[in-house]
Amino acid sequence: MPKDKLVELPTDAAHHFVRVMRATSGSQCEVVLPDQRVFQAELVNADPATVKLVQQLDTKPELPVQVVLACGLPKTKGKPELIVQKGTELGASRIVFFAAQRSISQWRANKVAKKLDHLQKIAHAAAEQSHRTQIPQVTYYDSLTNCLDHEQTDYKIVAYEESAKQGEHAQLVQTLKQIQANQSLLAVFGPEGGLTEDEVQMMAKRGIKAAGLGPRILRTETAPLYFLACVSYQLELD
Amino acid sequence: MPKDKLVELPTDAAHHFVRVMRATSGSQCEVVLPDQRVFQAELVNADPATVKLVQQLDTKPELPVQVVLACGLPKTKGKPELIVQKGTELGASRIVFFAAQRSISQWRANKVAKKLDHLQKIAHAAAEQSHRTQIPQVTYYDSLTNCLDHEQTDYKIVAYEESAKQGEHAQLVQTLKQIQANQSLLAVFGPEGGLTEDEVQMMAKRGIKAAGLGPRILRTETAPLYFLACVSYQLELD
Repeated sequence: MPKDKLVELPTDAAHHFVRVMRATSGSQCEVVLPDQRVFQAELVNADPATVKLVQQLDTKPELPVQVVLACGLPKTKGKPELIVQKGTELGASRIVFFAAQRSISQWRANKVAKKLDHLQKIAHAAAEQSHRTQIPQVTYYDSLTNCLDHEQTDYKIVAYEESAKQGEHAQLVQTLKQIQANQSLLAVFGPEGGLTEDEVQMMAKRGIKAAGLGPRILRTETAPLYFLACVSYQLELD
Repeated sequence: MPKDKLVELPTDAAHHFVRVMRATSGSQCEVVLPDQRVFQAELVNADPATVKLVQQLDTKPELPVQVVLACGLPKTKGKPELIVQKGTELGASRIVFFAAQRSISQWRANKVAKKLDHLQKIAHAAAEQSHRTQIPQVTYYDSLTNCLDHEQTDYKIVAYEESAKQGEHAQLVQTLKQIQANQSLLAVFGPEGGLTEDEVQMMAKRGIKAAGLGPRILRTETAPLYFLACVSYQLELD
């Protein structure tokens, strides 16, 4: 039992707790262990910042299924950041961007690591803020085909505007009523210009089903957030 | 029947269609009439910009219930704008901000009109973008009590973090399964610091029920978007 165990905080957390929050001996915080158990803890030493585990907390902040967002790279500055921040708050397990056929911008090979590092930091901060025990991993693929070849999940759907316009509204509900705890679900979202006929057909060939997300046209960064909220509603509230 | 009827576009729409989109005689667009009917239309004259109604479209982009978001005024610049833009995309009927007890910023009386005008323009643009036929009205109250006194709706709930922490998860589902088409629902959200005990008790006295929005802590601007997606999922997809 790790109760009463002393844990030295990592540098970032130590800085935030001791310098920014001005924690002193006895100040309380929550600590997530590498095995995802959450403990109430208190500061016993400021430098190096060390806490004592007081009591295990019974929190279950993670969605019961693993959700992968696969987003066509948006052209607008700030949108990948918004998707990562809000997607993390809403419980995504992984957030991947892919260069879609209609993506205006692509990430040059020598910039990918730096951009992912930037987004990963946003995911880290958002996970802490929303009291999650998992930090979603952020990844990039240079095409949708590549993305689908590498991301292995139990279920895959695509949010397709044209199918929403034709009144398709049953697929998302059906998928969320079918999926079992600990299974995984990937959802594909187009960039600002939408997915091409080509991409849609390629996904249909792979058996990926089109799901409407309601009758209003959602922006590229809004659709994944709508989707995650629906997953939570069906699996955590209903 | 207004088919073949000629309609002169309002100045903003005329500028966007003719100057920005470079529409010429015969260019197609969608037009929403004051009674909310939607028509396919084509440009017949550029100055003054005039379209001919070609065919009525059978689109139903509005939520079947009227949803009012009542948001404690956030302190962070850009958050009211995000709530209005995304709240409009996701189908809100009205978006009201109130000076909560923990709101860091308040709007001075002589600035309210200007700030609402700014947010109303964002709602207008987002409504067009998402092909809605209604533009949500944006309003401000100087307290929660004032807000609740003025906003008359069939149902009222409050998203309360403490009730989410205690595992409350049935109230939102219950409300959304109860509400009937054309009824109205108001949901209250706290500012960054949350609602005070005082505000929560005042709402309890009025019979406003606390609803958890899942086990993750959502930021003040994320909670209303989660909520609207759930309304759409339950009432438009299920």
